[in-house]
Amino acid sequence: MKLKYYEVDEKELLQEAKKGKRIAIKLPNGLSCYACKILSFLKNNGIDAIFLAESCYGACDFIFYDDIDRIICIGEAEMPYLCYKPPVSFIEAKYDFDVKFIEEALPFIEGRKVGIASITPFIHKIEECKKFIEEKGYKAFIGDKSRRTAYNGQILGCDISSATSIANNVDSFLFIGDGFFHPLALYIAVRKPVIVANPIEKKIYSKEIEEMAEKMIKKRYAHIAKATECEKFGIIVTKKIGQRRLQLANRLKKMLERHQKEAFLIFMNDINEAINYFDFDCYVSTACPRVAIDDADRYEKLILTPIEIEILLGERKWENYEFDQIL
Amino acid sequence: MKLKYYEVDEKELLQEAKKGKRIAIKLPNGLSCYACKILSFLKNNGIDAIFLAESCYGACDFIFYDDIDRIICIGEAEMPYLCYKPPVSFIEAKYDFDVKFIEEALPFIEGRKVGIASITPFIHKIEECKKFIEEKGYKAFIGDKSRRTAYNGQILGCDISSATSIANNVDSFLFIGDGFFHPLALYIAVRKPVIVANPIEKKIYSKEIEEMAEKMIKKRYAHIAKATECEKFGIIVTKKIGQRRLQLANRLKKMLERHQKEAFLIFMNDINEAINYFDFDCYVSTACPRVAIDDADRYEKLILTPIEIEILLGERKWENYEFDQIL
Repeated sequence: MKLKYYEVDEKELLQEAKKGKRIAIKLPNGLSCYACKILSFLKNNGIDAIFLAESCYGACDFIFYDDIDRIICIGEAEMPYLCYKPPVSFIEAKYDFDVKFIEEALPFIEGRKVGIASITPFIHKIEECKKFIEEKGYKAFIGDKSRRTAYNGQILGCDISSATSIANNVDSFLFIGDGFFHPLALYIAVRKPVIVANPIEKKIYSKEIEEMAEKMIKKRYAHIAKATECEKFGIIVTKKIGQRRLQLANRLKKMLERHQKEAFLIFMNDINEAINYFDFDCYVSTACPRVAIDDADRYEKLILTPIEIEILLGERKWENYEFDQIL
Repeated sequence: MKLKYYEVDEKELLQEAKKGKRIAIKLPNGLSCYACKILSFLKNNGIDAIFLAESCYGACDFIFYDDIDRIICIGEAEMPYLCYKPPVSFIEAKYDFDVKFIEEALPFIEGRKVGIASITPFIHKIEECKKFIEEKGYKAFIGDKSRRTAYNGQILGCDISSATSIANNVDSFLFIGDGFFHPLALYIAVRKPVIVANPIEKKIYSKEIEEMAEKMIKKRYAHIAKATECEKFGIIVTKKIGQRRLQLANRLKKMLERHQKEAFLIFMNDINEAINYFDFDCYVSTACPRVAIDDADRYEKLILTPIEIEILLGERKWENYEFDQIL
């Protein structure tokens, strides 16, 4: 079944859907416009499924659901260490492409040793990319997967450990994927050239990543500087099973209180514009690390990451700025 | 403690908060701007509470929460038939006012027999209002509470049975409260004059209710008419404990299918703009009845109530239009 640019294996979908009696499908934003199409397909194959229309920003973004005995999540790869209730079948959506287009990335690669990283709709091609690059005379490395990732070389917005684990062995990184959040996180972590090869656009980005990263770090510093005047901190904790960091939240609360700030935990599953109206001056998100970074402009109030709070309070040096990760 | 125009009993708040070891406060939108103020007050009294920042459109709007052993909900009255987990202490916010202002409503009352209805921040004054009206020579009636309401005479957006139960005995209704949703629902149900006495504005509305109701019904008819072209229906089911109507949803699904429509259940807790992007033509909300009526303009796609679906499919006559209630 073709969904947008992505291919979903119909046989696998039916096979997984037959494992439950009360099945629900869950879809990331980009695929939710095919909900009825997928339900119709299942129905035509004798399976009456439900659409579980909750937020779906990754395999981390699950709570516990009743009245369903299996979830079919289309378009995400499993987070192997999580215990899903009910069980979840992850059916990946794959983007097929000819790896030859990455030839255009080669002139931008510094050194001969290249680390390769990718994300789910493209990761099935990572070995082919490695082979292609090695045929061009480079030595290519793919880092091992972590407990949160399903494939070697796969990185997440909140877990780039597959790439950082090989950073010392390589001169540059090649990121195969779309969007800039992952390569930015990677660049900030490794401070080595990161070249992006976007298989959908068939475009290469190199110096742009460094420029964007520097701009973003400046913006984050500005947010931290603004927060020095804040007195009332709300520490946001989600119950999404792959984003819940209650212990960290309690540690931050104590740290803020030690520095004479008022600090309270806020249990909130999906962070949204409501935070503009609460009487807190500043928030810390212990949920998805992207919220503070990517969505900052959506909010009138400041949202910092846990690492930024440490910098704010002088418990970490400015030069040790890091992207927040859930490892 | 004064919150906006409302008075909250501090002693009651502390007494309830001391009943748990891990307490969270939950607040309706209008009071969420006092979250930190309330948490500070509790903290100064030795109670370190959490802010449970989930949607709070009534005592119906609860799911089950972990890691908390009691919720203090400020500003709503209990729904007695629900089983909350963890237990919830409802601390009402009361609006104090001099009942004499309703004298201005008297010239608009038709007949001598008046039914009185009200909502939570004002309901504590209902007996005083009754007495005042009776002193003016009227015979006043207050309907019994239902399983969903905490007080005689109290109505909800989804349960006006306290008022409808006395409709045959009265000539007019007097509604003590703010907003127009409740009196509109009441007018549509009873088709007798409904006079609104708003204690905050100290204003009286009479003919306006009838006009607004007629306008609203016309708008609903237009929505039903538009939906005749729709083929793909999404039936929204929430897991909020006081709004969950799974059986009704299954009945609507079968009814739609009998009429050759495609129909699927959608599990969605908080209905939001995401529905604009799903590939359904029309939605039915089995959750809070206000969603389809009050929020219609927020959505590009149609949302009907279960009763409107019956009309659409010819299973109910147009002239039997009713407000959706959860009874």
